Amino acid sequence: MGINTARLTTHVHELAEIGRIGETGVRRLAHSKKDQEGMALVESWMKEAGLATRIDEVGNLIGRLEGLDASLPIFMLGSHIDSQPYGGRFDGAIGVLGALESVQALVEEGHTFEGPIEVIAFSDEEGSRFNKGIFGSRGLIGELEEGELEREDEDGITRREALEEMGLDPEQVHLAAYDPEQLFAFLEMHIEQGPVLEDKGAAAGIVTGISGPLWLTVTYKGFAGHAGSVPMHLRRDALLGASEATVALNAIVEKRQPAPTIGTVGNIKVFPNSRNIIPEEVKFTIDLRDIDLERRNECESELRVELESIAARHGLEIDIQEDTNSDPRYCAEWIQSIMAEQAAHLKMEAPKLMSGPFHDAMPISKVCDYGMIFVRCKDGISHNPLEYSTDEDIIEGTKLYYETVRQIAGNMKDYQMKHAADKINS
Amino acid sequence: MGINTARLTTHVHELAEIGRIGETGVRRLAHSKKDQEGMALVESWMKEAGLATRIDEVGNLIGRLEGLDASLPIFMLGSHIDSQPYGGRFDGAIGVLGALESVQALVEEGHTFEGPIEVIAFSDEEGSRFNKGIFGSRGLIGELEEGELEREDEDGITRREALEEMGLDPEQVHLAAYDPEQLFAFLEMHIEQGPVLEDKGAAAGIVTGISGPLWLTVTYKGFAGHAGSVPMHLRRDALLGASEATVALNAIVEKRQPAPTIGTVGNIKVFPNSRNIIPEEVKFTIDLRDIDLERRNECESELRVELESIAARHGLEIDIQEDTNSDPRYCAEWIQSIMAEQAAHLKMEAPKLMSGPFHDAMPISKVCDYGMIFVRCKDGISHNPLEYSTDEDIIEGTKLYYETVRQIAGNMKDYQMKHAADKINS
Repeated sequence: MGINTARLTTHVHELAEIGRIGETGVRRLAHSKKDQEGMALVESWMKEAGLATRIDEVGNLIGRLEGLDASLPIFMLGSHIDSQPYGGRFDGAIGVLGALESVQALVEEGHTFEGPIEVIAFSDEEGSRFNKGIFGSRGLIGELEEGELEREDEDGITRREALEEMGLDPEQVHLAAYDPEQLFAFLEMHIEQGPVLEDKGAAAGIVTGISGPLWLTVTYKGFAGHAGSVPMHLRRDALLGASEATVALNAIVEKRQPAPTIGTVGNIKVFPNSRNIIPEEVKFTIDLRDIDLERRNECESELRVELESIAARHGLEIDIQEDTNSDPRYCAEWIQSIMAEQAAHLKMEAPKLMSGPFHDAMPISKVCDYGMIFVRCKDGISHNPLEYSTDEDIIEGTKLYYETVRQIAGNMKDYQMKHAADKINS
Repeated sequence: MGINTARLTTHVHELAEIGRIGETGVRRLAHSKKDQEGMALVESWMKEAGLATRIDEVGNLIGRLEGLDASLPIFMLGSHIDSQPYGGRFDGAIGVLGALESVQALVEEGHTFEGPIEVIAFSDEEGSRFNKGIFGSRGLIGELEEGELEREDEDGITRREALEEMGLDPEQVHLAAYDPEQLFAFLEMHIEQGPVLEDKGAAAGIVTGISGPLWLTVTYKGFAGHAGSVPMHLRRDALLGASEATVALNAIVEKRQPAPTIGTVGNIKVFPNSRNIIPEEVKFTIDLRDIDLERRNECESELRVELESIAARHGLEIDIQEDTNSDPRYCAEWIQSIMAEQAAHLKMEAPKLMSGPFHDAMPISKVCDYGMIFVRCKDGISHNPLEYSTDEDIIEGTKLYYETVRQIAGNMKDYQMKHAADKINS
């Protein structure tokens, strides 16, 4: 009973062969030949599992299992199989294969479901190729943007052309959109892409939500001068300002610990960046995240005060640009509860944690409740061939996934009735 | 009586026409055609002043005026006329032309001198072309390094070839070296290349010494991770470390104010420098200067303790590389005193200040006492076409220079006897 661990492991490793780079890397850029080859392989496994498959108008691969009542909204499961240009084997892939394995096992055990289940491999989650991701999941909720199809990849190929090469009709992408009423709930499993589970010694964890980032770009402009000849009191050193800002951001965030508030300066550009010239202009990025939007907003306010006061103290001009400001998307409490119960039932330690990175679940959260399971990955490394999760951890995560699907799919009407009004993110 | 201000101003502006770029820039790269053209023009002015001229084996232009006693050591005056690739009109040039004007005026007034005077335009002070400067002044004290002639410029032309193109014999560069006993004292006038005189509202100032820099390159190595998924307590953020180090350096230096201690982080390289990845490795430079070596050493010790403690606090590996460690070269007290007396006599405010940048006086200081006069330059800008000093300020500086030369050259034997034992820098 339960999932077929050998089949799951085999699927994970066979899919990793498609677009393999080096010993452990994967390159399956969205809509590329390798990506399509991967999709075809997964589609063949879906068919083996008895699912009715199709590629929708935005390139999502969807495998459908009918329930007793076709008029009920869909319980959707999945993730993506496209990769970063120099990516790993597990990011996304285990979420598609774990979903498929869960459904396949349930089918093999003779379960029947009240409503329809769809296993989905979303197209272009990563966004590396056209510099804009979660394409398939945004397509599914009808939130593609104007001009989206005209975005070009490095070779000058547009999204439109890439879809045509796949045999799709770019004029029809709007047809991929589901009526929100069609969707009941969404479950996604994914590698953590962070070190929390490893730190806690847990194979899998229950996600509380996706903390949308606040992204700012700050520019400090001071005045260049010879590092050997301008006395300290006459300086307007933009890098000193940026350094104080970096330290201030850290202090603001540290003050909130052990809350999961996180803040990062990841990118900095210094002009003229010469060892004996006082930095004239520094541009640096702020990445601030919290599952609690109010707390994140407090941090932002404190930071803005600090940024201004640093500028004033060092005679710097300041410009603050807001690049991204995403709200957190919370996982449904009722799904988290089911996961927690099933973990207890499995005698599995499954700590709760938030997701910093976004996932296909983020757009889907706008139209239905969702839940996520994270699987431990070594050193938190992702988007890199070094990305690694053990077979055992993937199996553990999938067991929890399977139990959660079994619980929900077996009681779809009940849960739907109880939680139809929740839709906490909409 | 005194200097011919019209002639001085004309010389400055005529020389600025040679290699002019744009309205106000100058490009006279060492040994280039334009540099040689500039040298030829200055040589013609030296001849008009009655000096016996020659180009020595390293390309220095030297104009000599015999004194009453040819066996006395030489009183040397000058600077350089080569420029940065995208340089200004005043850097170096006013030091050569101010020296020449001072001597010419004294000659025209019928002064005779006890010993020989030489006005020198050193070759390749800037070092931009072969990435190693103060070539002529190092040549004059016999301190050229092995392999020096094989250094190549951007076009693959070696120093050797450049000297040959000028008609010099690279095999003879050692002949440019003076016996240290041949040199009595050296005076150099230069634009400040800093904002101190402007800040003090003074046209010219008396230099106390050249503070050699301590140059370190610090590398912090932490661990990359997704900026959205690694909690604060699991981070090893190399940029946070570098920022704390920048703030610490500033605090250490600020603590010493109003001492002229200065410290700068001018260059920083971040890997991978991506807005949503925690910085894994940061390399940054430290520039620390003080005219008081002991104080600079104290700062360095404090900084090293801080750097280590920051590394420990954030779990960073640390590497500190010492790139340059120059001792300060002090201006002779007796020359500073003469300058101060002459400034008082001229009713000129001439504040004392240290030089952060190095000059030809630095190598020369190893073989004889020296003094320097700085001329105010706008906003402290140098090595840039925007570099600017007014005619009036150059005239003021040259008046002080003239008076100082007159005083010393009229009493060479006395000063030599009194200060022969001083040679404070050797």
